[in-house]
Amino acid sequence: MAYKVGDKEVVKKTYTAEEVELFAVLSTDKNPVHLDDAYSANTVFKKRIVHGFLVGSLISAVLGNKMPGNGSIYLSQAMSFKRPVYLNEEVTCVVEIMEIIPEKSIYKLSTNCYNSKNEIVIEGNAVIKWMPPSA
Amino acid sequence: MAYKVGDKEVVKKTYTAEEVELFAVLSTDKNPVHLDDAYSANTVFKKRIVHGFLVGSLISAVLGNKMPGNGSIYLSQAMSFKRPVYLNEEVTCVVEIMEIIPEKSIYKLSTNCYNSKNEIVIEGNAVIKWMPPSA
Amino acid sequence: MAYKVGDKEVVKKTYTAEEVELFAVLSTDKNPVHLDDAYSANTVFKKRIVHGFLVGSLISAVLGNKMPGNGSIYLSQAMSFKRPVYLNEEVTCVVEIMEIIPEKSIYKLSTNCYNSKNEIVIEGNAVIKWMPPSA
Amino acid sequence: MAYKVGDKEVVKKTYTAEEVELFAVLSTDKNPVHLDDAYSANTVFKKRIVHGFLVGSLISAVLGNKMPGNGSIYLSQAMSFKRPVYLNEEVTCVVEIMEIIPEKSIYKLSTNCYNSKNEIVIEGNAVIKWMPPSA
Repeated sequence: MAYKVGDKEVVKKTYTAEEVELFAVLSTDKNPVHLDDAYSANTVFKKRIVHGFLVGSLISAVLGNKMPGNGSIYLSQAMSFKRPVYLNEEVTCVVEIMEIIPEKSIYKLSTNCYNSKNEIVIEGNAVIKWMPPSA
Repeated sequence: MAYKVGDKEVVKKTYTAEEVELFAVLSTDKNPVHLDDAYSANTVFKKRIVHGFLVGSLISAVLGNKMPGNGSIYLSQAMSFKRPVYLNEEVTCVVEIMEIIPEKSIYKLSTNCYNSKNEIVIEGNAVIKWMPPSA
Repeated sequence: MAYKVGDKEVVKKTYTAEEVELFAVLSTDKNPVHLDDAYSANTVFKKRIVHGFLVGSLISAVLGNKMPGNGSIYLSQAMSFKRPVYLNEEVTCVVEIMEIIPEKSIYKLSTNCYNSKNEIVIEGNAVIKWMPPSA
Repeated sequence: MAYKVGDKEVVKKTYTAEEVELFAVLSTDKNPVHLDDAYSANTVFKKRIVHGFLVGSLISAVLGNKMPGNGSIYLSQAMSFKRPVYLNEEVTCVVEIMEIIPEKSIYKLSTNCYNSKNEIVIEGNAVIKWMPPSA
C-alpha cells in the first residue's frame, strides 16, 4: 500500500425495494418512510426513501474492500444527510484521502455520496487506521 | 410528542454470525475481519467483529421507531468507534435528547452504544428534524 | 374465492447474485455451485446457478399471496429440477388449478417454472387446503 | 466419497422471527401467517409459522454441504408438510441414503424433518446425482 493524499475510489450502487426491506429487518429500523408507499406520499419526501445507514454502509464497503482495504480499522465516521435517496436511484460514493499521518498509520478521508443528478446526498468524512494482519 | 431534554430510550441487540454475513452481502462490505475466523485471528481484534455500520444502524432504529419516532428526518450522525463489537455480544444503544430547538423542530441527541461490560463501543451524536406526515 | 379448475396465476422473477448470496446465508446451503464463479466453471453447469429452493419458493409465494392466497395451508409440494436457473435469468412460475375437492377445501395444482427460453426448469405439483382465518 | 445405503446426516436449526421476515422478502411469500401475530392468532395454527420452503431449504443444505456434499446435482425433492413449525422451535433434519444406483451416480434419500417433540414436520424424499467438478 502506497497511498498518497488525493487518491480516490468511486463505487456506484442502486438500492431496490427488496434491499431496503431486508435492511429494515436487519437493522430493526422499520420507519414507514422506508417501507410504506402510502405513508411516504404524505411526507416531505413524497416517496419511500432508502435508509441513510444503508447508503452510508457503501462508504464502509469502499474503506474495507478497496482503499485502503483489508486491514482498515474504522476510527470514526461523520455523515450529514443532505438529500434523500430514492428507491432505484443510483448512488455514487467517492472516497478521497485528505491527510495521512504516516507514523500512526492514520488516514483521514472525505466520504461523499451523490445521486444520479450529481447532487450530494451524504457529505461525510472518516478516519481509519491501517493495521494489516500479522503474517 | 412532548419530548424534553434528558428524555432517553434504550434498546439492546445481539448480532449473530448470520446477521453479519447478511449485512456483508447487503452493504457489499466483505472485509474478512467480519467474515473469516482464520483471518481475524491474526488481526488486532483476534476474532471476527460486527460491522460498525450494522451496530450504528441500531441508533437509526431508535430514532425512527421510538424517539422521536415516525416523522424523524435524519440530518446528521457522527460516530467514533471506540471498541470492537464481537459476534453474539449484546449491545445496548442509549439515545438521549441533549437539546431541542422548538421553532425549527430540531433535536440534538447523544447516541452511545455499550458492550456487555458497559464499555462504550460507539460514541456518537445525531441531529434530527421532526416532521410528521401531513394528514 | 370462487376458483375453478383451469384457473391460472403467473409470476416472474429474476435472481441476482446478491439474492443468491443472501439465500445461501439464510438456508445455510453454501454449495459453491451457487457462490463461487471459479468452482462453477468446472461443473457441468459452467456458471453459478440459483438454489432450486429459492426458485421453488416462488411457487410458495404464488400460493400464499395470489391463488388461492391468504388461508392457504400447504400440504405438499413435489419438484423435479429439470434445468439449472442462472443468475440474472428471468423465471416464470405458472400455477394452475388441476382439481378441486370442494367438501375438503382441497386444491391440487400444477406448479411449473420456466426459463427465459420457455424451457421448463421446475416441473412440480402441490396440494393445498384453503382455511381462511376465522373472523 | 464412499457412501452406502443407511448413511445418515443430521442437522438442527431454529428459525427466528427475523429469519422468517428476511425469507418473506427474498421469496416474496408474504402470507401473513408467517408475519402477522394478530392474523395468525385467528388461523388454525394460532401463532406465526415458519415458511415450509425455509424449513425445506435445510434439506438442500444437508445435501449440498454434507452428504453427498459439493458435486450434488438436485434432481427432485418431494415434501409433505405434516405439521407447522413455529418461530424459535428447533427443527432436526435427517437425511438418509435409501438407494444408490452406482452406474448412474444416483442417490435416493429420505429427507425428514422433526420438531422438538420429535414429531415429523416434513416427510420427504430426494434424488440427487453426484457429479464432482472436473479437476
